[in-house]
Amino acid sequence: MTVEETVKQLRENDNFIILTHIRPDGDTIGSASALCYALRKTGKTAYLYDNPQFEDSYPWIAEPYIAPQGFQPAYTVAVDLADEGLFPEGFHGKVDMCIDHHPSNTNYAENTIVFPEKASCGEIVMQIIRALCGAIDQAEADMLYVAVSTDTGCFVYANTTGDTLRAAAELCDAGASSKYLNKLLFRTSSRARLALEGMIFSTLRYYDGGKTVIAVVTKKMLDEAGATEKDCQDIASLPGRVEGAFSSAVIKEIDDTHCKVSLRTNGFVDADSICKKFGGGGHKMASGCSMDNNCFVAADILAETISEAYE
Amino acid sequence: MTVEETVKQLRENDNFIILTHIRPDGDTIGSASALCYALRKTGKTAYLYDNPQFEDSYPWIAEPYIAPQGFQPAYTVAVDLADEGLFPEGFHGKVDMCIDHHPSNTNYAENTIVFPEKASCGEIVMQIIRALCGAIDQAEADMLYVAVSTDTGCFVYANTTGDTLRAAAELCDAGASSKYLNKLLFRTSSRARLALEGMIFSTLRYYDGGKTVIAVVTKKMLDEAGATEKDCQDIASLPGRVEGAFSSAVIKEIDDTHCKVSLRTNGFVDADSICKKFGGGGHKMASGCSMDNNCFVAADILAETISEAYE
Repeated sequence: MTVEETVKQLRENDNFIILTHIRPDGDTIGSASALCYALRKTGKTAYLYDNPQFEDSYPWIAEPYIAPQGFQPAYTVAVDLADEGLFPEGFHGKVDMCIDHHPSNTNYAENTIVFPEKASCGEIVMQIIRALCGAIDQAEADMLYVAVSTDTGCFVYANTTGDTLRAAAELCDAGASSKYLNKLLFRTSSRARLALEGMIFSTLRYYDGGKTVIAVVTKKMLDEAGATEKDCQDIASLPGRVEGAFSSAVIKEIDDTHCKVSLRTNGFVDADSICKKFGGGGHKMASGCSMDNNCFVAADILAETISEAYE
Repeated sequence: MTVEETVKQLRENDNFIILTHIRPDGDTIGSASALCYALRKTGKTAYLYDNPQFEDSYPWIAEPYIAPQGFQPAYTVAVDLADEGLFPEGFHGKVDMCIDHHPSNTNYAENTIVFPEKASCGEIVMQIIRALCGAIDQAEADMLYVAVSTDTGCFVYANTTGDTLRAAAELCDAGASSKYLNKLLFRTSSRARLALEGMIFSTLRYYDGGKTVIAVVTKKMLDEAGATEKDCQDIASLPGRVEGAFSSAVIKEIDDTHCKVSLRTNGFVDADSICKKFGGGGHKMASGCSMDNNCFVAADILAETISEAYE
């Protein structure tokens, strides 16, 4: 669908329920909330489906839009949702519209608008709201700025393009509180998170002359840092910051003989095929697996497997 | 001066020497190099004055433009240079043109173009080059992207505006290698830097229920991390990342009874007036001083002084 067709559909329907994905991030929450707010502005009834994981991730954005118990939706919109495995089973086969930017979108919805070249779903919702309401207002600008900025790590990730930066510029012009949001989203960490980062950076393990860098995160480290699941977000990318690293991994201890591996590479070796050797998999530059080893032993085994792939 | 007047001056002159500031950063180097490249494109002879500190900071950008020994300049341009204290004494009183974005510019040059609302000098040079050459080419886009992105911490600092993001978008459109540059400039650290960050985050000292956070950096820590001056860039901002911090400081040990303090605040207390009590000073939110104390004793004294200011 085009933006115009999307807006026509939205205008012709009412009583919207909007779905976000599991482990919701700033893009799904910011995009869905902004769309909900904009639909309400046009006189529609619209709510977000109450994602049980909202409380872990920007609860202050989603909160005003969560559907009350007993709300009977007439039209379902999925936002930033690539496939049906990412939302409640009750909605499988029942999604009227999907707004997404994932190239892997499985086309499960009745109507789909996918712009795979966009860094964030927020950029697509921004176009839809502009066509629906004529302009982006300040509240929408804040929510969409969260969407665009979090999906690009504040414009530093490789998915950032000139269009992304231009969209963000427009959101700033529309009144997005980018200074406040940048401080909150990108320059504030919990004590536990910083303590954990401290331990990770103090105990990096180097292999192959530094081409492979592995962080082992033990339960003892998490305990000492006082870190919960929330404090561990995106730790998989930390060891890859080291100069000269081709491959990096975080190995999280589960118990004495089990651990979980997150592997990142610069593309020179294939993370997916390495993780497949241990029964996991994923993408070429980001992949994962579980290993039935002590976490320190696992680090050595993983490093050796990666080393063979360099040859 | 306006952009048009600046371009007129540049067109009417030749044999340019371009000055960068002491402790050169991405903005002064990227802006000066891009201007030098653009002037050469128009047939002029142009060089950068050989800043002895280029080797510490993006030497690969400045290197092709450094003036050979014996070059006799006829026109001097200072770029990103707020006052004469920041460049060699030999040029004092002899600067023909200053291109800058600092509100504090002392107007020392014959002709000055200052846009204090710009986050970076690169955005001004971008306008000048566009007026001088008609468009920004790919080489200029790379150099100016370094300028704009480094002066804004990759668009996360509070100086970033819609205009900054729009300028960066245009540089991406003009072919800036933003993916490569972002990885290099913002997502790569030396082993020593990460080890040092690890130690800093593992040893943060909390005062006043966490409102004040102080990192003490001892000589032993620097030795153990293998960190040089280069690895210590911007460490003053690290403890301020902690959630709930109103004031943060890095105290660097000089010897058993001397240390150097970098204080940052959120503006609630005045960093300048606190540092003045110890014979230092600076800005309201970023200030510094030296203290004649053991670094750990200094931390407690500083925290107590800050505590009094909260009341």
